[in-house]
Amino acid sequence: MTKTYRRKLDIGNGRVDLSHGAGGRAMAQLIADIFHTALDNDWLRQGNDQSVFEAPKGRMAMTTDAFVVSPLFFPGGDIGSLAVHGAVNDIAMSGAKPLYLSASFIIEEGFPLSDLARIAESMGAASRAAGVPVITGDTKVVERGKADGVFITTTGVGAVPEGLDLSGDKARPGDVLLVSGSIGDHGVAVMSKRENLEFDCEILSDSAALHGLVADMVAAAGAALRLMRDPTRGGLAATLNEIAQQSRVGFRIEEAAIPVKPEVAAACELLGLDPLNVANEGKLIAVVAPEAAPALLEAMRAHPLGRDAAIIGAAVEDERRFVQMTSSFGGARIVDWLAGEQLPRIC
Amino acid sequence: MTKTYRRKLDIGNGRVDLSHGAGGRAMAQLIADIFHTALDNDWLRQGNDQSVFEAPKGRMAMTTDAFVVSPLFFPGGDIGSLAVHGAVNDIAMSGAKPLYLSASFIIEEGFPLSDLARIAESMGAASRAAGVPVITGDTKVVERGKADGVFITTTGVGAVPEGLDLSGDKARPGDVLLVSGSIGDHGVAVMSKRENLEFDCEILSDSAALHGLVADMVAAAGAALRLMRDPTRGGLAATLNEIAQQSRVGFRIEEAAIPVKPEVAAACELLGLDPLNVANEGKLIAVVAPEAAPALLEAMRAHPLGRDAAIIGAAVEDERRFVQMTSSFGGARIVDWLAGEQLPRIC
Repeated sequence: MTKTYRRKLDIGNGRVDLSHGAGGRAMAQLIADIFHTALDNDWLRQGNDQSVFEAPKGRMAMTTDAFVVSPLFFPGGDIGSLAVHGAVNDIAMSGAKPLYLSASFIIEEGFPLSDLARIAESMGAASRAAGVPVITGDTKVVERGKADGVFITTTGVGAVPEGLDLSGDKARPGDVLLVSGSIGDHGVAVMSKRENLEFDCEILSDSAALHGLVADMVAAAGAALRLMRDPTRGGLAATLNEIAQQSRVGFRIEEAAIPVKPEVAAACELLGLDPLNVANEGKLIAVVAPEAAPALLEAMRAHPLGRDAAIIGAAVEDERRFVQMTSSFGGARIVDWLAGEQLPRIC
Repeated sequence: MTKTYRRKLDIGNGRVDLSHGAGGRAMAQLIADIFHTALDNDWLRQGNDQSVFEAPKGRMAMTTDAFVVSPLFFPGGDIGSLAVHGAVNDIAMSGAKPLYLSASFIIEEGFPLSDLARIAESMGAASRAAGVPVITGDTKVVERGKADGVFITTTGVGAVPEGLDLSGDKARPGDVLLVSGSIGDHGVAVMSKRENLEFDCEILSDSAALHGLVADMVAAAGAALRLMRDPTRGGLAATLNEIAQQSRVGFRIEEAAIPVKPEVAAACELLGLDPLNVANEGKLIAVVAPEAAPALLEAMRAHPLGRDAAIIGAAVEDERRFVQMTSSFGGARIVDWLAGEQLPRIC
C-alpha cells in the first residue's frame, strides 16, 4: 500500500494506542511499518483482507493455535518465533508440508512499539527460516488491563503427501513409540524466566520448526508411520493419554529411555514439576509399525533436530487406556494427565 | 475422543478456570462438552491437532480475523456468530467460495461456562447456516484480568473461481461503486448496547454471511467485477480510502445515494458518530466496470442481503487519492479516514 502517513511511527519510544486498532490511518501505518516490514512478501504487499495462492494437488491440512505465553520473551525464543513454530509443527505432525501461515494479533493498549517490532521481526525470521510465509493477518487493540501485552493466533495450511494418512487413532498394540529428543526444555525455560531463577547453565526453549525432520521421517518410514504429535501443553503425559484414548490402546514407556537434560531434571525438581507434564515446542513423538522402527530412528538421529531421538516404549493392548511407566528402579506407575493446572501460559 | 471424565462439566453454573487451558483432562472435557458439541463435524471428531481436507482445484484464498467485540452479546448477534461471518465474508470478498474455518479461543479465567456454551452454539448455528464447518481449533485460558471474557480468532480458506482475480488495486477511473445495503447498523447496535441506550425501535447488527450474495454477483458481473470489500472497522470511509490508495484513484460519492436507516442516522447523531465511519458486518462494497453496473445492481437487489443495494458513486482520476462526497445540499467535502479512534472493540 502507498504510504501517506503524516508522521513517522516512533518505534523506539512509542506505544500502541486504541487508534492502532480502529481501522483507520494509524492502523494502516502500524501494519505497514511493523508487520509488513518484518514479514514482507508478495501476498502481504497486496494489502487485501485475504490472500490468494495456488492450491496444491490432493489433500491439505489446516491448524490453528493461540499463543498467550508469559513472559513474551524467554531464553531461546519469544512469542513471535513460537507462534510460527507452533503452527508449522501442528501442520507437520500430519506429515504435511507447511505452505502458508496467517497471524492475528490482539494487543493491549500501551504495549511498547519496540517490543511489537521485535516480536514481528522474530516472526519474520522464523517464517523465513522455515520457508513458510505469513500471507495474511489482522490487528486488534484492546484497552489497558483487558489483555496482557500481546496475544498471537497463527493458522497454517499445508500439503499432505499422497498415500500418507496419519491420525491419533492409528496406534496399534505392538507399535513402537519414539521421541525426537530431550523433554521439558521449553516449559522449564519459560518458568525459570517467569520465576526469575538462575541456573548454572541457562536452559533454552527447544522452540523449533520440525517440518524438515518430519520430511526425513516420512521418507524413511512411509506408510509404516501411524502418527506423530508434538507434546506441547500437558507434555508427554497428556499427549500419550490423548493418543491412548483416540487409538483405544495403552502405552508402556521406560523412564530410563526418555531423554531429559540433567539441568532440566534439576530445575524440575526445584520447581516441583514432573518433566513428563512439561511443555515442549521443538519435539515430537512418533508411533510406527515395529518393522520400520530401526530405520525411522536412524533417520531421526541423522537430522539435527532428532540427534537425541530414542525409542521410549510401545503401544499395548489395554482396555483401560493406561499409560504406564517402568521406572529406573524397576517399578511401574501410571502416568496420568494432570487433572489440575500446572503451568499456565506456557505457550 | 472417548469421554472418560470423572465429573460432568457443570455448564449451568461452572466457570472456566486455568486447568481448562492446561492441556490436560479438564481441557479435553471442555473441548468435548462445549466446542465439539456445538460445532460437531467429522473433522473435529477425529480429535487431531490439525484437520485434513481435499484441496480444491486452482487457487485458494486465506484470511484471518481476531474478534474482541465488547459487549460479547449485542442486538442481532454475538461474538460467536460474528467470528463466523467475519471470516466467511473476508474469504467471499475475493470472490471465493468459503470452504473451511478454524477457531481459536482465548478465555479469561472465571468466564461463565454457560456464556461460553451460548457463544459456541451461536458459532455452530452460523457455521451450519453458512455451510462452512469449523474443522480445527484451539483453546487457551489466561488469568483473571489478563483478557476480557473471551477473544476469538477465526481463519478461513476458500476456493477462488477460475478466471476471477479481484484485488483492492483494480479500481480504474470511471468504474462504478455500489454498496449492498444500509450502512452503520452493526456499529450502532454494539454502541447502543455498550452505552445502555434505548431507542424506539431496536437497532440490530447486520452481521451476516455474504457469500451467497457474492456468488450471485460473480455470476452477474464476472470479469467486469474489479473488487469487493466489506466495510467493517473504520466503516465505508476507511474502506474507500484504503482502496483509493491501493488503486491510485480517487472516489466521488453521493451522500443522498448512500442508504442509512433513519434510526441509525438518529442514533449516530445522538452518539456523535458519522455513519461513514461506523462498522458494518453484513454489507459489502463493489467496484465494477461501468457497462456491467446495471446487471450487477439488479443481481444484488434480487438477493435478500442486497435488497437495498445502490450505486453510490464512481472511481475518478485523482493524484491525491481523495474520497470526496457531494452532500445532499450540493456541496462537496473530503471523506478522510479517522486519524484517531472512534469506536474501540466493535468487532
